[in-house]
Amino acid sequence: MRRIPLIQFGLGGVGRAVIERVLAAQEIFARREGMALHYVALCDSRGAVIAPDGLGAEDLRSLLAAKAAGQSLADLPLGYRQDGLEDIVDLAGVPGAIVIDVTATETTAPALQLALQRGYSAVLANKKPLAGPFALFQALTAGGRLRYEATVGAGVPVIATLRQALLAAQDQVQRIEGCFSGTLGYLATGLQAGEPFSALVAQAKQLGYTEPDPREDLGGMDVARKALILARTLGWPLELADVAVEPLFPPDLGAGSATDFLAALPALDASYRQRVAAARDQGCTLRYVAQLAGGAAAVGLRSTPLDSPLGRLQGTDNLIAFHTDIYHNTPLVLQGRGAGAHGTASGVLADLVALVT
Amino acid sequence: MRRIPLIQFGLGGVGRAVIERVLAAQEIFARREGMALHYVALCDSRGAVIAPDGLGAEDLRSLLAAKAAGQSLADLPLGYRQDGLEDIVDLAGVPGAIVIDVTATETTAPALQLALQRGYSAVLANKKPLAGPFALFQALTAGGRLRYEATVGAGVPVIATLRQALLAAQDQVQRIEGCFSGTLGYLATGLQAGEPFSALVAQAKQLGYTEPDPREDLGGMDVARKALILARTLGWPLELADVAVEPLFPPDLGAGSATDFLAALPALDASYRQRVAAARDQGCTLRYVAQLAGGAAAVGLRSTPLDSPLGRLQGTDNLIAFHTDIYHNTPLVLQGRGAGAHGTASGVLADLVALVT
Repeated sequence: MRRIPLIQFGLGGVGRAVIERVLAAQEIFARREGMALHYVALCDSRGAVIAPDGLGAEDLRSLLAAKAAGQSLADLPLGYRQDGLEDIVDLAGVPGAIVIDVTATETTAPALQLALQRGYSAVLANKKPLAGPFALFQALTAGGRLRYEATVGAGVPVIATLRQALLAAQDQVQRIEGCFSGTLGYLATGLQAGEPFSALVAQAKQLGYTEPDPREDLGGMDVARKALILARTLGWPLELADVAVEPLFPPDLGAGSATDFLAALPALDASYRQRVAAARDQGCTLRYVAQLAGGAAAVGLRSTPLDSPLGRLQGTDNLIAFHTDIYHNTPLVLQGRGAGAHGTASGVLADLVALVT
Repeated sequence: MRRIPLIQFGLGGVGRAVIERVLAAQEIFARREGMALHYVALCDSRGAVIAPDGLGAEDLRSLLAAKAAGQSLADLPLGYRQDGLEDIVDLAGVPGAIVIDVTATETTAPALQLALQRGYSAVLANKKPLAGPFALFQALTAGGRLRYEATVGAGVPVIATLRQALLAAQDQVQRIEGCFSGTLGYLATGLQAGEPFSALVAQAKQLGYTEPDPREDLGGMDVARKALILARTLGWPLELADVAVEPLFPPDLGAGSATDFLAALPALDASYRQRVAAARDQGCTLRYVAQLAGGAAAVGLRSTPLDSPLGRLQGTDNLIAFHTDIYHNTPLVLQGRGAGAHGTASGVLADLVALVT
């Protein structure tokens, strides 16, 4: 039985879903692959649990229950206050270890680099380290031991398709277009149906589709990071500042509190209504689109033909269209749920399995 | 430099496209991966060329030109009459060899088995060996050294998505629906537009979308083989006879010559017109669909909601929709060109790279 020690950074919704999926998969892995998946360390933002012999299923279930009840690992009998993720890698790391980063912070980068230096592997759902300086992206991905399927499109195999079906097959990618935000997809679908922009943002917030401050979604930076990761996977040496980003609100609305922002939004309704009508007059609809072509990346609200894959997209699904030498008349299109804890956990599990099999 | 010896069965359109793509990729492979792709044997149905030291680019280009001019390898100065693919494996095989099967015959199976026994790997665009007895499928795929992405959806990563994004991620597949025939997609799109069935078949034949005898497409067996390969990839122990197949013509039209068949087709136009109208009355359209659910597989013409992924599909693209535990509200959908020599060659190249990297 080959032992696969797991070190996980992050115990939010995605982190807990990953643990649940690993627990569910352990028995199948042992039987089919002869591999024992063992958590040797778990960290949240305040604390950690380290168990060189592996945490048992009961321990993991009680940790999940404690986290769901709002506790930090630092508060638990097994836990201690973590003073740095690099220390965790130092303390828990053993040959063959895999670090799973399901946080949403760039501060994991040094610990990831340390883990790779030690010969460990890594799986990221966290976009931030890969959307930092290009040199950091190169350093992290150089050896092929860091995988990041879940950073774009959650479990939809966007990165695998780009790498395996297109780049490895020596197809030439001419252009990529995609919708990578379920939240902004919800807004675009509502705008198309004639609803006011401000009401849609309020609904999306109420449904939990947005961050607590909706400007984090409406600003477009999350989509820009995904576009940057795709561009870099294509080999383009772009920085985040090179991605042209069109936010869904003017800069003067970005200054105050989230409450002020929501109160001011109705001022934008008329101009969105006009843009929707202008698009409709041309057989188009508005979509928040990431576009990659000719070495450049841009994200923003685009007038998109209704009879195109992006124009037909409805609701919160993500979609990516690859236009290539082979897929030239019609693009290669992937569509599916691009968010949610379990969708993202699927992307993490797929990478985990790919690393060990 | 690691040497990758290639043995290829089949030099039709797909086979020639694979050689062209390998030639184009050789330099990149050598530089980026430190690997030398070398053809050590090529076979068509009558002859073979064997070159233990590897065929040079010039040799390959003159072979391609001779094939394009209608010659067999048996007729060439370098060639000799092949008396069996197993002999070719015997003569040309060396450790690390990869057998590429781009024929369309089940007779390659013994040679594939011999190659796997010797420890070689294999890449198939040929469906027939995988659609034979289930025990043969198991024997060929058991060690994970035989890959077959191109057998379903050509270069669209259908098999990779099923294996990596769904099965490896421990998602539960509830149901798969797909359109896996560009030819039948062309017919379904034309029927939807109100054109007569017989005229569409004649057009499809003229455009080269059908086999010389269109009954080979209209009978549904090619789609049934793809459904069977998907079912077996899911682990279902089905035989081809277990796949329920609805042909697009009644049995009495299947007996005579292809010319007789085409002449008799207008007799079917009225009933197809009725089926199209009945579907339209229910907000549906007809699609030739492969369905997998509950351990069973069926292929046939189905009334499909216009607002579903399959209902929206137009033209010759292939489409697959995976309904799973994770993708339950909306399916995970892949769409793209599912045929053509270069699309199929993409699937072969992707497998080749996956085997050696």
